[in-house]
Amino acid sequence: MSLSGSIVTLSAPTQRLMSVASHLHSQRFKVVVCRNLGPDVMSILEARPELDLVVWPQNSACERSWLMENISGATGVIVMLTDKVNAELLDKAGPSLKVVSTMSVGYEHIDLKEAAQRGLKVGYTPDVLTDAVADLSVMLALMAGRNGGTGVDLVQSGQWANFSWSPFALCGPQLSTTPASPTKTIGFLGFGRIAQATLARLVPFGITHCLYSSNPSSLPNDARDAALVKQHKLQAVSKVDIDELSRESDVLFVLAPGGSETYHIVNETLLRKMKRTSILVNASRGTLVDSDALAKALREGWIWGAGLDVVEGEPNVTVDHPLVKEPRCVIVPHIASATLETRLEMATRAAQNLIGAILGWEMPSQVNLSNVS
Amino acid sequence: MSLSGSIVTLSAPTQRLMSVASHLHSQRFKVVVCRNLGPDVMSILEARPELDLVVWPQNSACERSWLMENISGATGVIVMLTDKVNAELLDKAGPSLKVVSTMSVGYEHIDLKEAAQRGLKVGYTPDVLTDAVADLSVMLALMAGRNGGTGVDLVQSGQWANFSWSPFALCGPQLSTTPASPTKTIGFLGFGRIAQATLARLVPFGITHCLYSSNPSSLPNDARDAALVKQHKLQAVSKVDIDELSRESDVLFVLAPGGSETYHIVNETLLRKMKRTSILVNASRGTLVDSDALAKALREGWIWGAGLDVVEGEPNVTVDHPLVKEPRCVIVPHIASATLETRLEMATRAAQNLIGAILGWEMPSQVNLSNVS
Repeated sequence: MSLSGSIVTLSAPTQRLMSVASHLHSQRFKVVVCRNLGPDVMSILEARPELDLVVWPQNSACERSWLMENISGATGVIVMLTDKVNAELLDKAGPSLKVVSTMSVGYEHIDLKEAAQRGLKVGYTPDVLTDAVADLSVMLALMAGRNGGTGVDLVQSGQWANFSWSPFALCGPQLSTTPASPTKTIGFLGFGRIAQATLARLVPFGITHCLYSSNPSSLPNDARDAALVKQHKLQAVSKVDIDELSRESDVLFVLAPGGSETYHIVNETLLRKMKRTSILVNASRGTLVDSDALAKALREGWIWGAGLDVVEGEPNVTVDHPLVKEPRCVIVPHIASATLETRLEMATRAAQNLIGAILGWEMPSQVNLSNVS
Repeated sequence: MSLSGSIVTLSAPTQRLMSVASHLHSQRFKVVVCRNLGPDVMSILEARPELDLVVWPQNSACERSWLMENISGATGVIVMLTDKVNAELLDKAGPSLKVVSTMSVGYEHIDLKEAAQRGLKVGYTPDVLTDAVADLSVMLALMAGRNGGTGVDLVQSGQWANFSWSPFALCGPQLSTTPASPTKTIGFLGFGRIAQATLARLVPFGITHCLYSSNPSSLPNDARDAALVKQHKLQAVSKVDIDELSRESDVLFVLAPGGSETYHIVNETLLRKMKRTSILVNASRGTLVDSDALAKALREGWIWGAGLDVVEGEPNVTVDHPLVKEPRCVIVPHIASATLETRLEMATRAAQNLIGAILGWEMPSQVNLSNVS
């Protein structure tokens, strides 16, 4: 009989006894969970007898007052992007707090300096959403070029029969190369994992050149770029300045971190340099794109179209928003990581990070706080 | 001085004289053009002094009465999918007619038997739209899985701020494979050029298996399939029966010809066999899918979602249509070939086919009428 077989054959009463014994002898930890993480992941947390779970009970963002009230004496907390983790909250939690685990790849809602000063561990969920975001980036590039938004609207509003077909109606620039148009340049603002995963997906569309701009302080990586040229059989993978990136890209993907260093990096100056047939895709953070400048670029035809997963000031984006009014702007509501597989993996990782930090096990994904000051 | 240089240096008056001489000495042919093909392609036709062009003047489908009135004595006609070419029209044209050139890959609007009996040549525009249709097929697969339609609607209607984020809100099945879900089977109903171009585009999404069903009379092509396995590093490319195709496909692409042999091939029986997380994409002809059965499948959750470029009975698809009412059905108005590059190439090919047939030159794409009876 195998080891796993012998574990399986433990009788239910025996298992209960062991669980009770564990309860009696081990310390118990209060854990605040700011959102129900679904049955698969909540059962991972519930299976740990060491944890006393306090879970926000509603199907909406956790209310600040509830969180402030319940955080006192907690050892760990699982938060979402919408939950601000600042000195006020950490003070309220008190010295028992060991870990803040966020179900997100970004951690701009967490004051890392305050966390570091208190010796906390911070968990996050990188990597697992790379493929979901790359998939959505490709979808947005296609939708922006192919009138995906306008086409859906036309059918949904019952106007298909009134739509007057003509040889070039609802036509836009083709993502794939053609014999008459055999080159295509894809640009990336930011060239990390998600950008490279997006690049890989575009290779069979016949793209020929990849340009990117990244953090000015990061060194060129010629060996990596040469390997990508070979792997994808491209004519070039080159780090260029933002000026060249703007001028040469047929599709420009914005896939860089948010924050003050990239604030409005896509502005009127950049957009005026782009090709009239080009597409802009933003699947990173809304703050990187100046919405007014982009609306003007679309209205005046500086670029062909845009596909956005994020908009500055979201979710407060009303029908009066200048980008919502542009027919060639396709906007989806920040769903780049929204797949069943990826969100399950993110929630699982958030639970594992929390449990690992509390029980002294490995944390699969821990934010490095050693350089935070 | 090169030959091309010497041609360029002909003086304008000399060119005019040559054109006039050509007019005087050559026969002239009446050509009816059922749609303005845009400046680039109309200029190709206008540059032929042998042609007397009669062009439908409006930005809408050509009226039948206008076509019937103008076709008499024509040597050639350029038609669209919306222009029915039957015995009535061909009789009206009379014995002068030599060629029918359609700007489309399909020619179900042309009575080939009647054309063959009259010894006509028929031109069409295959191949040139393969990539545009493959691009759109990928877009529809992504939109159907990722709530592309619902997401756009939500932002367009100003509801983003009221949308209650939760870990699994607006989540659907991920097209890309993941470490926890490492296999993905793509199915094709019909496995011609467009299907194979779609397959190639999906390889970097991590798909592992490709299944297809095609015309029962077509022989298995084991060598081709083995080459595709090797080229794309897949675990399998296999011809299977429709039953297995329905059961195994995570995404099922319908990319087969229309007509009686494929009428409602996607029906309730097929849809009931599909996976609950599967996606159906139709970018071929609306008649292949039973709309009522698909609406029922979506409503009752037999499959996850659908992406359609075509709907039976289009363009008469109103807001009351059962598929328009399904939130997980993404519909675009038959725009699979609608890119600037592809439509320009299709219109150019239609002009070349017409000119070739009339002037006795090569027709780039001629329908084979030798087996039509």
